[in-house]
Amino acid sequence: MTADIITIGDELLIGQVVDTNSSWIARQLNLAGISIRCRTAVGDKAEQITEALDTAIVHSDIVIITGGLGPTRDDLTKQTLARWLGVELVFDRATFDRVERLLTSRGIDPGGINRSQAMLPEGCRILPNDLGTAPGMWMEREGRVIISLPGVPFEMKGLMEGQVLGMLRERFPTESIIHRTALCFGLAESTLAERIESWEDALPHWLRLAYLPNPSGVRLRLSAYGVDPLLAGREIDERFERLRQLVPDYFVGFYDSVNQAVADLLTASGHTLAVAESCTGGAISASLTAMAGASAYLLGSVVSYSNELKQSVLAVDAGDLERYGAVSRQVAEQMAVGVRRLCNSDYALATTGIAGPGGGTPLKPVGTVWIAVATPSELFSHMIRLGDLREQNIARASASAVNMLRLLLIGRPEVATSDGLL
Amino acid sequence: MTADIITIGDELLIGQVVDTNSSWIARQLNLAGISIRCRTAVGDKAEQITEALDTAIVHSDIVIITGGLGPTRDDLTKQTLARWLGVELVFDRATFDRVERLLTSRGIDPGGINRSQAMLPEGCRILPNDLGTAPGMWMEREGRVIISLPGVPFEMKGLMEGQVLGMLRERFPTESIIHRTALCFGLAESTLAERIESWEDALPHWLRLAYLPNPSGVRLRLSAYGVDPLLAGREIDERFERLRQLVPDYFVGFYDSVNQAVADLLTASGHTLAVAESCTGGAISASLTAMAGASAYLLGSVVSYSNELKQSVLAVDAGDLERYGAVSRQVAEQMAVGVRRLCNSDYALATTGIAGPGGGTPLKPVGTVWIAVATPSELFSHMIRLGDLREQNIARASASAVNMLRLLLIGRPEVATSDGLL
Repeated sequence: MTADIITIGDELLIGQVVDTNSSWIARQLNLAGISIRCRTAVGDKAEQITEALDTAIVHSDIVIITGGLGPTRDDLTKQTLARWLGVELVFDRATFDRVERLLTSRGIDPGGINRSQAMLPEGCRILPNDLGTAPGMWMEREGRVIISLPGVPFEMKGLMEGQVLGMLRERFPTESIIHRTALCFGLAESTLAERIESWEDALPHWLRLAYLPNPSGVRLRLSAYGVDPLLAGREIDERFERLRQLVPDYFVGFYDSVNQAVADLLTASGHTLAVAESCTGGAISASLTAMAGASAYLLGSVVSYSNELKQSVLAVDAGDLERYGAVSRQVAEQMAVGVRRLCNSDYALATTGIAGPGGGTPLKPVGTVWIAVATPSELFSHMIRLGDLREQNIARASASAVNMLRLLLIGRPEVATSDGLL
Repeated sequence: MTADIITIGDELLIGQVVDTNSSWIARQLNLAGISIRCRTAVGDKAEQITEALDTAIVHSDIVIITGGLGPTRDDLTKQTLARWLGVELVFDRATFDRVERLLTSRGIDPGGINRSQAMLPEGCRILPNDLGTAPGMWMEREGRVIISLPGVPFEMKGLMEGQVLGMLRERFPTESIIHRTALCFGLAESTLAERIESWEDALPHWLRLAYLPNPSGVRLRLSAYGVDPLLAGREIDERFERLRQLVPDYFVGFYDSVNQAVADLLTASGHTLAVAESCTGGAISASLTAMAGASAYLLGSVVSYSNELKQSVLAVDAGDLERYGAVSRQVAEQMAVGVRRLCNSDYALATTGIAGPGGGTPLKPVGTVWIAVATPSELFSHMIRLGDLREQNIARASASAVNMLRLLLIGRPEVATSDGLL
């Protein structure tokens, strides 16, 4: 069972908005066992919409369209769909009444708007929309299903969840698709791929592997198509377990980020954390607190951008700052010790480095970052060398620092400070 | 001049990632006067990639492809492109050396897998990639241009900005499109639209207005198509000047964010800033330090997640914490005063609130945020009420806090603390 998704709107073609609708729809359909063949975004032009419909209907059982259902003149989806189906737009009294009630309840004069919203392609099945003025539409042609939904994300989601997904499950009982994704951190994508080559070769043909690298590590996704879900789930679990045994220090687990792993470890053990950030400028704290529940383990952070603050608040030695420079093992370690004492936490994490674009020297080029972790009884530090891009350097230094803490929390100090670690 | 954008990757079809590449590319091409006809996302399957290429090449002068260039086996773009063009993949020594240098400089063993990164379609023009192992490729067929770029966003952007856009401008001289975008902050989109209705109505027909709301305010974009650039630029400047006079306290300027405006104001005046963050958890510091040059004005920040830290480091009164609670005017003001003293800065900004999902009470529901600013001589505070979503609350509270500082920096204390302000 396959589907095409067509999103309609000029704003999608001038880069004014990022299309989140189609990835949301893709995820929902996948969970329902429907594969997406293609996602297409076209403008509010009848010709482009028709062409996209013509292509989609040849290849897929289901075509889901969003957007272009507004009452203004630039929205053409309904007219184009009606012409494409060879039917007329006809007035629907129930939709008219519903739109009038909705607008009145919001203190808006319905005016002429709602009449155009009640003009719908003859013979379509109307999907009432409780959250806006444009109803969804379910149409059929040559055994294929075409579904048109409004482009406003929460209206689209309301219709999908409340009506469309159930109707699709009824109409197309599907085979199962199972995905599971694990995170690896500390090895470059190519190095990881070499290390696990034999594991990858041994995967059964019905399991597909995908590499998804980002600053937070390399995610590996296994997907099983058309296999009994229980069997597939068990096989995927076993394969990932073998992967864990193959690269135990780099296999983080079933997380999207190392932050989630560290949050789980700290929350489970009841330990607390403090952070001292220089080059990461608050990015570690912000990414930890972006997850609900951070107050269970994070006591606080100090962003010590100036050397004065490193001395006055974190008790970094002025002589060491002078002698070794702010980007040094000594200063990173003293920052970690200082913020741990300040916050009275179990663990502390510190970063100091040169994010760029300025500030580099021949000995300490842009991208040089020192990371230190203070545990209840010991002190560790490690240097990494990143690239030239500030944004990228901040993201990667943050993730590497959190991963270093993770390795110490799971008792792998020799890995946490090993040279090859990213 | 039209372009098609094809993004490649199974992850785009199962909804695992949101495709930000194609909207970014669309925006850049638009600015260069190239219209996008269609955006298509397909999986890592040779048949789907070929089909998308066949369709695109018929309709557009330019086809830009991203993704599927990794060294792992799931990536098929190069092989598919070569077959589609009727050429072989051939070894490129310069690319091989470049990849080896890049990996070695990052402390990664190049190994054998990166040899595959140097196998490229015969006759293509190679676009060297300084930021990753996959080079871009520029190919031509029947007068159309096909450009293949890596899917990693910063590598793609590096190649587009450094090479592709310039090459396209040379190859396809286009009619002019001029866009200019100004930021407004502090009014809801619909309220702003009502206030500036007459201004909008008076725009000449060849100027198009677009509203671009996000947590950082409402950006207004004026676009002129096919008009003499000098004339268009002058007219746009005049229109924006009238807009500024219409809503002087909400018109921030030609910025993407209030952070940029505040960074400019502080840098120009030579004043310094310290930040104390509770509910925003480091997001203000991280967003300020994400911009190069932050060390010119930002001395440091304290993320005081725990009440103990509020007392010990920021000198918030224990009795007031007890009496008024951590989310209160008193605590916000004391945090601002405390961090200003700690860092010895000219200005200080503080936030304390309930980001959610937990922690709300009937009197202080989730979304309640107190913001305080300490200036060299005075102290201001203001409460805002946001929604239920943690991520949005953090983003909006951060932006509102920075905007409050902005209003005080430009001498508008009565607006900074006014009730209607978002």
